[in-house]
Amino acid sequence: MMNVTDFVLKGHVFYSKSLNEIACVADGYVVCLEGISAGVYADLPDEYSELPIYDFDDRLIIPGLVDLHTHAPQFAIRGLGTDLELLDWLKEQVFAEEAKFADAGYAEKAYSLFADELKRSATTRACVYGTIHVEATEILMQLLDDSGVCCMAGKVNTDRNAPNYLCEADAAISAEATRKWLHDTAGRFRNVSPIITPRFIPSCSDPLMDELSKIQKKCGVAVQSHLSENPDEIEWVRQLCPDTGNYAGAYAKHGLLGKGCPTIMAHCVYSTDEEMDILKENGVFVAHCPQSNTNLSSGIAPVRKFLDRGIHVGLGSDIAGGTSLPIFRAMTDAIQSSKLYWRMVDKEASPLSTSEAFYMATKGGGAFFGKVGSFEPGYAFDAVVLDDSSLDHPQPLSLPERLDRAIYLHDELQICCKYADGRRC
Amino acid sequence: MMNVTDFVLKGHVFYSKSLNEIACVADGYVVCLEGISAGVYADLPDEYSELPIYDFDDRLIIPGLVDLHTHAPQFAIRGLGTDLELLDWLKEQVFAEEAKFADAGYAEKAYSLFADELKRSATTRACVYGTIHVEATEILMQLLDDSGVCCMAGKVNTDRNAPNYLCEADAAISAEATRKWLHDTAGRFRNVSPIITPRFIPSCSDPLMDELSKIQKKCGVAVQSHLSENPDEIEWVRQLCPDTGNYAGAYAKHGLLGKGCPTIMAHCVYSTDEEMDILKENGVFVAHCPQSNTNLSSGIAPVRKFLDRGIHVGLGSDIAGGTSLPIFRAMTDAIQSSKLYWRMVDKEASPLSTSEAFYMATKGGGAFFGKVGSFEPGYAFDAVVLDDSSLDHPQPLSLPERLDRAIYLHDELQICCKYADGRRC
Repeated sequence: MMNVTDFVLKGHVFYSKSLNEIACVADGYVVCLEGISAGVYADLPDEYSELPIYDFDDRLIIPGLVDLHTHAPQFAIRGLGTDLELLDWLKEQVFAEEAKFADAGYAEKAYSLFADELKRSATTRACVYGTIHVEATEILMQLLDDSGVCCMAGKVNTDRNAPNYLCEADAAISAEATRKWLHDTAGRFRNVSPIITPRFIPSCSDPLMDELSKIQKKCGVAVQSHLSENPDEIEWVRQLCPDTGNYAGAYAKHGLLGKGCPTIMAHCVYSTDEEMDILKENGVFVAHCPQSNTNLSSGIAPVRKFLDRGIHVGLGSDIAGGTSLPIFRAMTDAIQSSKLYWRMVDKEASPLSTSEAFYMATKGGGAFFGKVGSFEPGYAFDAVVLDDSSLDHPQPLSLPERLDRAIYLHDELQICCKYADGRRC
Repeated sequence: MMNVTDFVLKGHVFYSKSLNEIACVADGYVVCLEGISAGVYADLPDEYSELPIYDFDDRLIIPGLVDLHTHAPQFAIRGLGTDLELLDWLKEQVFAEEAKFADAGYAEKAYSLFADELKRSATTRACVYGTIHVEATEILMQLLDDSGVCCMAGKVNTDRNAPNYLCEADAAISAEATRKWLHDTAGRFRNVSPIITPRFIPSCSDPLMDELSKIQKKCGVAVQSHLSENPDEIEWVRQLCPDTGNYAGAYAKHGLLGKGCPTIMAHCVYSTDEEMDILKENGVFVAHCPQSNTNLSSGIAPVRKFLDRGIHVGLGSDIAGGTSLPIFRAMTDAIQSSKLYWRMVDKEASPLSTSEAFYMATKGGGAFFGKVGSFEPGYAFDAVVLDDSSLDHPQPLSLPERLDRAIYLHDELQICCKYADGRRC
């Protein structure tokens, strides 16, 4: 008995088989059964012949893209204050903007713009920061849920080193607000779940981190935060946490770094060998945000080393450190940054290939959500249909060449439609 | 007596007063008299009250952008072969594509796509490479002329180190073809003039460079070429020209580097202090092409040093080393690259500001064309009207903030219209 939501997409299908291999099936069929991929076929097997086929003809079908790190309330300040470094930028731009989300009306307006843009993009999964405000974060979650994109979204925790208007009064109050928020939103959304979100070590006292750890152990939800982004920030953490050997240790000592606690750490630009060992051992996902790392003069993360060690790596837009929401842009930025890293820092760290960037943007980041980011059988059905016919060219192009162009020239093509978790959105 | 082509644009007007200052006149008037700016006014002087006023209301008006370095025949291979370095990429991608321009039909088709895209962009001035083919280059010039964008375009010279199908037989034949081309095109176009274009030192023998120098002395046209882009290329030049102390010297010894010979040199990623001194002394314009330098793993040009020395610097898209034709993208790439250079290479080289990038994209590069790139009185009237109303935002924005957003989020706004040399195009 076929489910009414079962269907087949037809077109030129691409997906990562491994870091170094993109499978390409011309005029292929991708089968979706109960929200799960049943695989890609050059000829449609008889058992699926009764399913509705959506024929996308000469268009390109890829897995939905995954954004492992972005700040919804900063969407409105993209491109502003770009001449500043991280800590100054936080003070002068970010905090003033995030304060506005105390007003539910403003949150509704600002988050609608973010959710609309996310819906229009090729992203089907995202891990999103809100602000400290419970009401605004619930508005964000509702808007994300309505967009159809599958998200984890977090109410931010902050109880120190922030302006009064953006600082929760103490650890207990911050933790209580978090419990209320988790209670309010439990089971409320189809596409969106909560993720515990301590802003970063400088913003969270030890008692707050302990409270969050207790909450995490109780409810089992995932955690997202920032790690080793900027030299001044790292020095600050060293002063705040003199008892931990490295920045990652400041999360680990509270049990908020992987193992039983699924964790994304954004940036990791300056992770040492020792810190990378901890990330690997604890199964932490690194959200690589190359555009943000460049805009904020942070540097270039050693992604080749992460991959060589088998650390999980996905990509993040990091709005508004990054100005571009499309993960296609994060893919090309990741490649470009890795080329500069190879040229200027470490000739042992070979540049990332297009295939590797595609992997990180799909299967690499997708793994944080489970079996996500591929069309191999058993994966959640996240798909994007791209129309590159506006990308006129005088010469014949192979399908792999068309994928390369779609990635590099993404702002010149059209997204026809997308599916997240088997549903069109 | 007013000229029928005299007019006034009304809107929010921006232009560079200096590297560090962008003038902004809200609801201002820019006056065009006989193709020349008569200045920007908050209130329209009586003497211009009879002129037609085109009221662009809440839109942004900036000087036209200048692209000092791009390869028209490579437009069709944007985003292809991006995992290669310069010399391999030339062999595997560029030469095969450029060979196709022996066919006038192909040239017409491929160059039309390039000219259409240039017309749609915010660029009003460009220095463009063709191929070795005279007929195709003339087709390119005609198409550029029709686009209304003011261009210098060059038939490329190559008599060594290229595949046979893309190598002119010897210096005399290459020079003769150049003379024919200059003769054919003399006075033929309103918006387009020729520029002598030796590809780069490895492609041009000493006898060819001497011939080109004679031609240049006779006709006085400008010259464009490549300089110090990539370490392997520089080493190759060292072997080819053991008698010159640096790469720039290999042009200078033939009289093809500034002084009486207006010259653009693209890249200059690895220019030494000595080479920078020569560039400064000879009044050479550096075309900084940050996206290309990143895509081809070349490195980051020391732009802060160029500016500190008073070397002329403009920006280049360098299609298809760069994949993006918009000079807005070159502006943000220049800023981002300079931030990484500061962080990773030289803490004395402060990052470029948005103001400096805007200057380079307008007045800096524009100076190669004369008084171009500003609305100050006496400058050629090149203007672009930008509609940023699709860039929705929940908060009020100042005009400088709107300009910042327009630069960073350029692919999300609309170009309403543009004027080059006083004519709408």
